[in-house]
Amino acid sequence: MNYKMVGQIIAPIMAVEAVFMLPPFVISLFDRDSRTAVAFLLTIAIIMAVAAVLWLWCRKAQKLFQAREGLVCVALGWIVVSLFGCLPFIFSGQIPNFIDALFEIVSGFSTTGASILQDVESLSRGILYWRSFSHWLGGMGILVFVLAVLPATGRGGYGMHLLRAESPGPEVGKLVPRMKQTAMILYLLYILFTLLNFLFLLFGRMPWFESICTAFGTAGTGGFSIKNNGMAGYSPYLQNVTTIFMILFGVNFNIYYMLMLRHFRSVLKNEELRLYIIVIVCSILFITLNIRGYYASLAETVRHAAFQVSSVITTTGFATTNFDQWPSFSKTVMLFLMFIGACAGSTGGGFKCGRLLLLLKTLRRNIRKVLHPQMVQVVRANGQVIDEKILDGTSSYLAAYVIIFIFSFILVSLDGFSITSNFSAVLACLNNIGPGLEAVGPTQNYASFGVISKLVLIANMLIGRLEIFPILALFSRSTWSHR
Amino acid sequence: MNYKMVGQIIAPIMAVEAVFMLPPFVISLFDRDSRTAVAFLLTIAIIMAVAAVLWLWCRKAQKLFQAREGLVCVALGWIVVSLFGCLPFIFSGQIPNFIDALFEIVSGFSTTGASILQDVESLSRGILYWRSFSHWLGGMGILVFVLAVLPATGRGGYGMHLLRAESPGPEVGKLVPRMKQTAMILYLLYILFTLLNFLFLLFGRMPWFESICTAFGTAGTGGFSIKNNGMAGYSPYLQNVTTIFMILFGVNFNIYYMLMLRHFRSVLKNEELRLYIIVIVCSILFITLNIRGYYASLAETVRHAAFQVSSVITTTGFATTNFDQWPSFSKTVMLFLMFIGACAGSTGGGFKCGRLLLLLKTLRRNIRKVLHPQMVQVVRANGQVIDEKILDGTSSYLAAYVIIFIFSFILVSLDGFSITSNFSAVLACLNNIGPGLEAVGPTQNYASFGVISKLVLIANMLIGRLEIFPILALFSRSTWSHR
Repeated sequence: MNYKMVGQIIAPIMAVEAVFMLPPFVISLFDRDSRTAVAFLLTIAIIMAVAAVLWLWCRKAQKLFQAREGLVCVALGWIVVSLFGCLPFIFSGQIPNFIDALFEIVSGFSTTGASILQDVESLSRGILYWRSFSHWLGGMGILVFVLAVLPATGRGGYGMHLLRAESPGPEVGKLVPRMKQTAMILYLLYILFTLLNFLFLLFGRMPWFESICTAFGTAGTGGFSIKNNGMAGYSPYLQNVTTIFMILFGVNFNIYYMLMLRHFRSVLKNEELRLYIIVIVCSILFITLNIRGYYASLAETVRHAAFQVSSVITTTGFATTNFDQWPSFSKTVMLFLMFIGACAGSTGGGFKCGRLLLLLKTLRRNIRKVLHPQMVQVVRANGQVIDEKILDGTSSYLAAYVIIFIFSFILVSLDGFSITSNFSAVLACLNNIGPGLEAVGPTQNYASFGVISKLVLIANMLIGRLEIFPILALFSRSTWSHR
Repeated sequence: MNYKMVGQIIAPIMAVEAVFMLPPFVISLFDRDSRTAVAFLLTIAIIMAVAAVLWLWCRKAQKLFQAREGLVCVALGWIVVSLFGCLPFIFSGQIPNFIDALFEIVSGFSTTGASILQDVESLSRGILYWRSFSHWLGGMGILVFVLAVLPATGRGGYGMHLLRAESPGPEVGKLVPRMKQTAMILYLLYILFTLLNFLFLLFGRMPWFESICTAFGTAGTGGFSIKNNGMAGYSPYLQNVTTIFMILFGVNFNIYYMLMLRHFRSVLKNEELRLYIIVIVCSILFITLNIRGYYASLAETVRHAAFQVSSVITTTGFATTNFDQWPSFSKTVMLFLMFIGACAGSTGGGFKCGRLLLLLKTLRRNIRKVLHPQMVQVVRANGQVIDEKILDGTSSYLAAYVIIFIFSFILVSLDGFSITSNFSAVLACLNNIGPGLEAVGPTQNYASFGVISKLVLIANMLIGRLEIFPILALFSRSTWSHR
């Protein structure tokens, strides 16, 4: 393990975090909220001091940078950013408990949106801004941002390792041969869409501060709300705008790049995109049929169904209604959507539509293989033969996922909540959604879990956002060995 | 597809079923229960007639017998045996509804033990015997039995295809080079253990008829009870005997063969056996700690914990207490045990300890592979390197399992029961256990589900018992194609 090289990458990440704390600091100053302002200033000072020491200590690093350094950078980067990111909550006294503050910020960066807060509206605007901004930063990836911004001098090849370890999905598509440019294109598209979302909300007369925070939460598919009743109080227009943008942010960003290049045919033929849209449309249809009579009009029913479906499949987690009170069938469909999640290469979490597609195709292939053991059977997606390694990787990703799920589920159940509460809490955290069912339903929060459960759920959120392996790698002996 | 060859195998299976209906017919005669006796006689006549026609029609079959013929034989064999096996229930008027009767017999043959009956004690002894015997026949495999008994003249090589398609576990071990002998050794061991179990029960003063039925249910890891309160009314001795025999029947039968050959060292080093025992011991320990205070004494607590743990991990499904009233942690451990199931090559169902072991080892290997992409990493079990094909097969088996689980869960939820009820009902049927939680808990039954749910659960029981692929193969176009 090349510790110094890892330090050389984590130090600038910390500096970037400190810079991003300036806007909430300014907002706090503007609000004459001295306690929050001091909290941010103090945090910035601590981060910069630690980053400076780390930077100086790691100046003379060897150039060796391989897969395991990439994994460790990503895992430690996220943990470090979370540990410092929760300090303003503590210093401002608004979330005095360390575990709760850590839970809240990990939920933010991992774009989960699960909260331990009972009364969100009592928070200061600086804190609200930082909380929502953490979604935005976590959505596209913190290291991807650093990659896009910092000069890549003399550290050839480490970009790919970082991008591969931080980006979601079975395959990382290089948009352009140079990593730095890929990262920049992704972030420019991301900024553009966030801005559009913000303007559409503003146009619907949402106050500007609420528009910013909502756009951050939508873009990162995070789901922290700044109102105690979530999105329920907003107009149908604002709810529908959010539905549409949630769906857009759940699409693989490569699709938008292909649209820019006018590769319309390959976009139309993209099988993951098709599956994503089919699942959304069918789920809205089935749930609308299942919950007919629950709301005043058909239009309202469709609106709530569409919002909740989009919110859950994209793993955002906003809510306009309490879907925990829907009938079993709709709730089970919601659990299914929680599991599959958004498209690979989007800001959304979950297992990913692309992986589900590969699993379904592998299953069909395997049935044929059992029937005709001698014949060679391949799996195709988007017209191309998929490498067996990717298929095996997808199946064993699911296996890792199931194993982690089971152990988390057992540990969390020690708190004695209902099976459905615990099951959906782990599902909602591991897939970065936010609300689950029953004790963690849309009108509830995670405050009542014990310390062990909160730590397990924090780990789940990180494992889910970083797609299992970076976090697990921290616990492997061969990560830390000398070879 | 070589239809005639399939017919040539299914006809004797039917004849065997008819022969096995003679004991309950005799019991009914002995009880002067003419209605049940007539029901069995009528069924035997129908089966023999249909089997005779099938046999004559399929006399001149080509010798071609490959993997797909093996799969179809197994799948159709089980379906045919179930369709005819439920006739006595209907003809005797004791389960007049066809779907209910089919549910009950599939639950029997698949060794699930899920029942739609409210009042088991009102059934006649002939029907009770047939119901419990179906567990025994299903436990070791109906085709394996046919294989062991019938002369294998001129149909070289088809035995392996049948055994592979019907026997549980990632690998089918040939005990001896000849299939017929392997099948005979397995069945002789099975008969010996059942007899031992019967004698131990008789020794504890259980009435002989109850001892037979309980031994059948234990041996097949089935779980149909002939008492309305399950095993709760029996003495601690009888409960403990059942606990021990359930654990014994959950062990890979190859282990007993190795013991006969005095290969003690390889038995001690068998990793699946170790995992199985560790999981049982730990679960009993954790649950005992978690439910302390629920029962009068520590001895009683351990007895109930041990019985329920053994019953669920071996997928038997007997109960001495209502574990649905245990705290969440214990119930979650039970769900976990329901999922993993017994050892490969035993009469138990579930995902199998052997597969879990391979998954865990594959996960550890994959972490190392992500860290060091260039290094070759192998997985070992019992000291031998496991072929990558088996590892991939295990992961994709889990994937198929999860996909089937999700779709069944969604369909069953249309009936509007609680999430936990539906989840545990699908888990309990797919893994051939029997009781689940809440609406399908140990003191409840499956009667209140609708027709669609019952059909889904019937499919789950067969899919679970035959380990997914034989049943799915029936729905594949390439099974029925001419090539």
